[in-house]
Amino acid sequence: MTGRLTQFYQRARKIFDLSQVRQTLGWDQNVMMPPRGVAQRAQQLSALAAVIHAESTDPAFGELIAELELGGTLDERARADVREARKAYDRAVKVPARLVEARAEACSLAQAAWESAMPRNDFQAFRPHLERVVALTREWADALGGTARYDALLEDYEPGMTEAQLRVIFTDLKASLLPILDAVRGASRRPDPSVLARHFPEQGQRAFCLGLVQDMGFDLEAGRFDVSTHPCTDGTMRDVRLTTRYHEDFLPSSIFSTIHEAGHGLYEQGLDPERFRDPAGQACSTGIHESQSRLWENFIGRSRPFWTRYYPALCRAFPGTLDDVPMEAFYGAVNAVAPSLIRIEADEATYNLHIILRFELEADLIAGRIETRDLPGLWRARMLESLGLEPSDDRTGVLQDIHWSVGLIGYFPTYALGNLYGAQFMEQLRRDLPDLDDAVARGELRVVKEWLNRNIHIHGRRWSAPELCARVTGAPLSADPLLRHLKGKYAGIYGI
Amino acid sequence: MTGRLTQFYQRARKIFDLSQVRQTLGWDQNVMMPPRGVAQRAQQLSALAAVIHAESTDPAFGELIAELELGGTLDERARADVREARKAYDRAVKVPARLVEARAEACSLAQAAWESAMPRNDFQAFRPHLERVVALTREWADALGGTARYDALLEDYEPGMTEAQLRVIFTDLKASLLPILDAVRGASRRPDPSVLARHFPEQGQRAFCLGLVQDMGFDLEAGRFDVSTHPCTDGTMRDVRLTTRYHEDFLPSSIFSTIHEAGHGLYEQGLDPERFRDPAGQACSTGIHESQSRLWENFIGRSRPFWTRYYPALCRAFPGTLDDVPMEAFYGAVNAVAPSLIRIEADEATYNLHIILRFELEADLIAGRIETRDLPGLWRARMLESLGLEPSDDRTGVLQDIHWSVGLIGYFPTYALGNLYGAQFMEQLRRDLPDLDDAVARGELRVVKEWLNRNIHIHGRRWSAPELCARVTGAPLSADPLLRHLKGKYAGIYGI
Repeated sequence: MTGRLTQFYQRARKIFDLSQVRQTLGWDQNVMMPPRGVAQRAQQLSALAAVIHAESTDPAFGELIAELELGGTLDERARADVREARKAYDRAVKVPARLVEARAEACSLAQAAWESAMPRNDFQAFRPHLERVVALTREWADALGGTARYDALLEDYEPGMTEAQLRVIFTDLKASLLPILDAVRGASRRPDPSVLARHFPEQGQRAFCLGLVQDMGFDLEAGRFDVSTHPCTDGTMRDVRLTTRYHEDFLPSSIFSTIHEAGHGLYEQGLDPERFRDPAGQACSTGIHESQSRLWENFIGRSRPFWTRYYPALCRAFPGTLDDVPMEAFYGAVNAVAPSLIRIEADEATYNLHIILRFELEADLIAGRIETRDLPGLWRARMLESLGLEPSDDRTGVLQDIHWSVGLIGYFPTYALGNLYGAQFMEQLRRDLPDLDDAVARGELRVVKEWLNRNIHIHGRRWSAPELCARVTGAPLSADPLLRHLKGKYAGIYGI
Repeated sequence: MTGRLTQFYQRARKIFDLSQVRQTLGWDQNVMMPPRGVAQRAQQLSALAAVIHAESTDPAFGELIAELELGGTLDERARADVREARKAYDRAVKVPARLVEARAEACSLAQAAWESAMPRNDFQAFRPHLERVVALTREWADALGGTARYDALLEDYEPGMTEAQLRVIFTDLKASLLPILDAVRGASRRPDPSVLARHFPEQGQRAFCLGLVQDMGFDLEAGRFDVSTHPCTDGTMRDVRLTTRYHEDFLPSSIFSTIHEAGHGLYEQGLDPERFRDPAGQACSTGIHESQSRLWENFIGRSRPFWTRYYPALCRAFPGTLDDVPMEAFYGAVNAVAPSLIRIEADEATYNLHIILRFELEADLIAGRIETRDLPGLWRARMLESLGLEPSDDRTGVLQDIHWSVGLIGYFPTYALGNLYGAQFMEQLRRDLPDLDDAVARGELRVVKEWLNRNIHIHGRRWSAPELCARVTGAPLSADPLLRHLKGKYAGIYGI
């Protein structure tokens, strides 16, 4: 069995290594690639997708997995790796190579089309590309089989989660969020977010954000920190690449994107270095990944202790700019609730409503209940119904996110799940570290990193997301911690 | 036959696309990768090399090639592609996978050993690694077969070239270069290169070099221009990436590296966009590639018309630094002849002597006429005989180049061939564009690019290097154009 196990790990790691090559190419395309390189990059990604697919579906690999499953002498680690490999193998063999290649190329072209169409507010130019991505994704989901197309897609991001479960979770969540939003709307005390729209030169933002990344404990010898239109994190372990973006007239964009992406990056750097290339050594789920970025962004980065430590440094980074703004006013500003058209600028109270809107649209789109031509109109109607706002153009409407262009359908819900998991982890972190606020107020952010390293990162995919949640917090996933957090925060800021 | 031909192109292009992924990873490793990412990148490259080897040696690809060869109804373009694919396939299948892996591993270890031994001047620490690389390269050449081991290696870089031909070419070249060198040594008039070692802030160098790249006609929308320790060019067609390096106390390093690499880059951008992924659509040979970089670097970039246009701009980029240096003195400085121990710092008169020394040693080494233990002593003796200098250590002797450590044996001669081809192309370019000097003196460097596009770049690998040379210049390769160029230039500068 040892020889078989060695062969199994060789094959599984080869597939992983090739998938990391794809990650590096993805980062390169976002951050470095010259604009005219799009078409040939698409061809390269297609070739790479084909070889990854061939390796992932090699019947000899399937036989190895089957033999190891029957062997019965594996330790817990190996059993977990075989279990994860089985899930991935069974999914991979269901999708024909032709479809894998066609989808990879379509997504690469659609991403470029989106990048060009979005600033020009030209949904019609983007639509044929989106149409093709959706058609191929439907075909993909059908090939995977199962009860519902959308569930088949979810499995890639949040294994075990279903559209039906999400509808229950999101219906309850929306029902609890809307009253909070109403209470905030009716509050007499209000923070003034306009201070965030003063002029903050990029150089000062860069230095401040770099300092945050370092204080969080992100290892820049094992990673990078760059700029891209759409902030993201790519890579793993000793080569983790974060990006952010700088708007000189809107400070929070860079700061909270940086903290968010560094939260993702710390997860990748915190995996088990002996296991990160193995099927069960990788990050648990997309929702758990997002819990890491959200915990850092919202529960640490938007907290009073955090700004107690960092507001003086921020003021020094922009001499004179914030002299008339007390720390409490700034803390209020970065937590101000203001329904907005743009998801990535949304506050904690409205963010999940943006996600719910996208979830409902993409679930309907994949099921064939709506078509791409319906999207701009439905987007406007739902936004009005949910947040009371109507986009004046598609750039601030249906074109605002890159996700669908790159084939990420079934992915949006994990943002909301991340908020829920993050809130629940945070409550446990507070129980385990009663003096957390003092540590954060001293800039000792590494205590957070170390708790996450120990409790979440190092375990990789050893357990499922619901199991990890239960083991870490002693309870199943619930929206209560998030709602408690929001009510507590807004009680202080809005006096509600 | 059409179906077969379609399959053939699909497979050939897939191999090409994957090789381009490897190029991008190579660039990334040189320019972007965080230092701790080395080990996991090595695993990724190994996985990628394995899949490229598997695709390149797939018997089904061999059968397709054989069927197309027998078919007899192919047009000239397809015949050229099948011919080039046949050569690559036959070479790939001759080398056992075991040897491919062993050599890749040996080279990886030898490169690390060289990087550690070189600054410590420790040839003995490097020697066992070099020994292993040489042993495996001999085995590799034997597997490839043919009349002489060295010829088998040359085939990767300069198809059709042989050791015997190189001996004839290089013997004549050396015999003609040594008298030029003697004449320069005895000249009473001498340029002063010390002006190049004044302080030139990096910012000014960056702006000046970027301007050159643009004036040469390099498309920065289809390429990048960055910094790396060792300047290089990676990628092709619409994604070509140049690097240079900036030394604030040695100006020519950045300027001539930039022009050199942009010369390579223009070749890649100038290939046929309909054919660049096909076996005969790629660059002709390593020597022809080098002719492009050398033509730009030495025949344009070190010419009087060039500095007539660019010296005033250079002076403006470094206010006050060159006020006391007339253009003619600067032109002399960038063309000063000064025998040096270090190849990459060599002038046009001595550069080829460095190459000839390396060619003679590596050809003898591969044939088994000498062994690695003989190298340091032979290096010193030959350097004394050729350039009248004796290295005081191995760091400035046999350890100075990375090439042998990474298995590049048979590559050095292409540097000298590039100088010869470049000179011969340049004479034709002058015949075709009689007012070339005036155009260059006006900064109209694109006339050079366009001539090269038309006469060389677009043809890819349609013809062999000797055939291309004959078609473009009407004559077989000869050292005469280079010697005429050097004599003419030094007559002006040294009064010889």
